[in-house]
Amino acid sequence: MPTMSEHRVPTFESVMQAAERLRGRVHRTPVLTSAALDAAAGAKVYLKAENLQRTGSFKIRGALNAVSRLDAGQAARGVIAFSSGNHAQALALAAREAGVAATVVMPRDAPAGKMAATRSHGATVVTYDRYTDRREEITARLAAERGLVVIPPYEHADVISGQGTLAVELFGQVEALDVLLVPVGGGGLIAGCALAAASLSPTTRIIGVEPAEGNDTQLSLAAGRRMRIPVPKTIADGIATDTPGELTFEINRRLLSEVVLVSDDEIRAAMRFTLERLKTLIEPSAAAAVAAALARRGGSGGRVGVVVSGGNVDVRRLSELMVE
Amino acid sequence: MPTMSEHRVPTFESVMQAAERLRGRVHRTPVLTSAALDAAAGAKVYLKAENLQRTGSFKIRGALNAVSRLDAGQAARGVIAFSSGNHAQALALAAREAGVAATVVMPRDAPAGKMAATRSHGATVVTYDRYTDRREEITARLAAERGLVVIPPYEHADVISGQGTLAVELFGQVEALDVLLVPVGGGGLIAGCALAAASLSPTTRIIGVEPAEGNDTQLSLAAGRRMRIPVPKTIADGIATDTPGELTFEINRRLLSEVVLVSDDEIRAAMRFTLERLKTLIEPSAAAAVAAALARRGGSGGRVGVVVSGGNVDVRRLSELMVE
Repeated sequence: MPTMSEHRVPTFESVMQAAERLRGRVHRTPVLTSAALDAAAGAKVYLKAENLQRTGSFKIRGALNAVSRLDAGQAARGVIAFSSGNHAQALALAAREAGVAATVVMPRDAPAGKMAATRSHGATVVTYDRYTDRREEITARLAAERGLVVIPPYEHADVISGQGTLAVELFGQVEALDVLLVPVGGGGLIAGCALAAASLSPTTRIIGVEPAEGNDTQLSLAAGRRMRIPVPKTIADGIATDTPGELTFEINRRLLSEVVLVSDDEIRAAMRFTLERLKTLIEPSAAAAVAAALARRGGSGGRVGVVVSGGNVDVRRLSELMVE
Repeated sequence: MPTMSEHRVPTFESVMQAAERLRGRVHRTPVLTSAALDAAAGAKVYLKAENLQRTGSFKIRGALNAVSRLDAGQAARGVIAFSSGNHAQALALAAREAGVAATVVMPRDAPAGKMAATRSHGATVVTYDRYTDRREEITARLAAERGLVVIPPYEHADVISGQGTLAVELFGQVEALDVLLVPVGGGGLIAGCALAAASLSPTTRIIGVEPAEGNDTQLSLAAGRRMRIPVPKTIADGIATDTPGELTFEINRRLLSEVVLVSDDEIRAAMRFTLERLKTLIEPSAAAAVAAALARRGGSGGRVGVVVSGGNVDVRRLSELMVE
C-alpha cells in the first residue's frame, strides 16, 4: 500500500491514479454549452459544470482522494480541515463515507448553507474570525491536541491530484481546447488541471482567473516568488486567498500561461448571465472564470474551456448579490 | 398538404405528427434527478427540464408546430398571439425561423425579460392592462384589421399537439411513470401530454397542478363544465388563468385523474429547493408542479414525472420572490 510520502509532489501519474480511485464515486459532470454564451464570448465555450458535482463543487474530488489514502491508524484518529465552505462539505462527506470522524474549522461568516451542509454530513464545526484569527494556527493546534490528520483545502499532494481529475474528465469530453480558464484561490484546482493538461492536452493554454482584489497568484508569478497581499474582500469568497500555496505555486509557476483578473461587477454579471440564459446556478468563484470568458480575457475566438467550480450559494445571498 | 381544419380536435395521431415535424427543431431536454429531491418527495422523481428548452419553455413546441402548418397566404399575412410571456417568445422565434411576421399582445406587467426577449426575436409587441382590458378582444380586433392569423397560447389544435410532444419525449426517456404532474393554466400543455400518455403510457395518472388562487380547471372538472373565476393573483404568472379553454377542457375532462392545488409559499419553496439543491432555475409555474411532488399531493411513493415547464424568470424578480 502506498504511504502518504510517495506522492509528496503531485504528478501527472498521481492525477491519473486519483482518476482511477474516484471512478464511480464522483459524478462525471456534464459540459454545458449555449449559443447565447458563445455569442457573448465570441468563442465556442464549454462549461465544465462542477456545480452539479456531489456536494455542489469540485472539492469532493480532492477530499475523496485524500481520505482514500489514509492508513488505518490515521483513519481511526480522524481528519481536520480549514475551509471557507466547499472543502469543508466535501471533506465531511468523504470522511463519512469512509467511516472517519471529521472536524472542520470555518470562518464565522461562511455562508449559512455551507455550514449547515457541513454539519449535516456529520462533521464537527469549529468557527473563527476571518479578519483576526489565523485558521492555520487554530487547525494545527486542534490537530496536535486531538491527533487528527490535517487535510488542507489545496496545499496537499493528494488533494491537488484529486482536483486534477476534473481536467482528465474534461479532456475526454471536449477535444482541442485552445484555452482552459480556471478560478484560482490557493491554486490547487488549477495545479491539478495543469498537470493533467501538460500530458493530455499540451497545446491548451492554462489561464488562471483571480478576483481583481485577490490577485496574490498573479503578483507572485510576476515576482517569481510567493507574495502575500491583505486578506481580499471580494464576493468570490471561495477564492479570496492572500497568498498561494507553496506546493501549488511550484507547479503553477511552471505550467500556467498567465493569470487574468475580473472585477466583482463582472463576476455578478456572469452569475446573472449563467442563471438567466443557461438556467444554471453557479457561485461567485465559478462565475469569475465565466466572467473572464465573457470579457475575452483569455484571448479572442477559439475553443474555450471554463471550469465552473461550484454552485453553492444560498438564495438569500444570491438575492443580495443580484441587487447590489 | 393538410389544411388547418384537418386537426380541429387534437388526437394522439396529431401529437405524433407534431413530434415528427419538430424533430431537430427543438431540444430533447434532459430529465433531471436528485437524491435530495427523491428524499424530500418520498418518491423517485423525474424532472422533464423544459427550462432548458429553446426560448426557456415548452411553448416553442406548440408555436413551431402551429407556424409549420400555415399555408402560404397565411404565412404572408403574419401571425398574432396574446400571451403572458413564454408563448410570445416562442411564437416570435418560430415565426422568425419561418420568415413570418409576428405581433404579440402582452400584459403591461409581464416580466421585463420576457418582453425584451419577444422583441429581440423581431416581433411587434402591443401591451394591455391585465385587470381592465380583455386580451382576446384586442387580439381579435388587430387580427381583423391586419388580416393576421391568431395563434392562441393553448386554445388551438396544433398548439396542443405540439405541447404533447414533450410527453412523447419523456415516455421515451423514463419508463413506467406512476404519475405525471403537469402545471395547468389554459390546459394546453396537460391536454397534449394526456393525449400522448393515453396511448404511450396508459397506466400513468395525469395530474394537473394549479395555484390555490387559480383553480379554474379544478372547479370546472368538479362542475362538469367550464367555470370562470376572478383573475387570480399568484406568483405563478404563466398559469394564472380565469377559465379553461373549450378545446383543452374537452380533452382534460376525459383524461385527467385530478387537479391538485399548491400555495404561493409552496411554489416559492419549490423554486428555492430546485435552485439550491439542483442548481437549476425554474419559473414559478414550473415550480408549482415540483411543489406538488414535494407535498406528495399526487400520492406517496412510486415513480413521479414532473413537467418543469419553463425557466424564464429574471434575477430581479427571482430576488423579490426569494425574500418575500
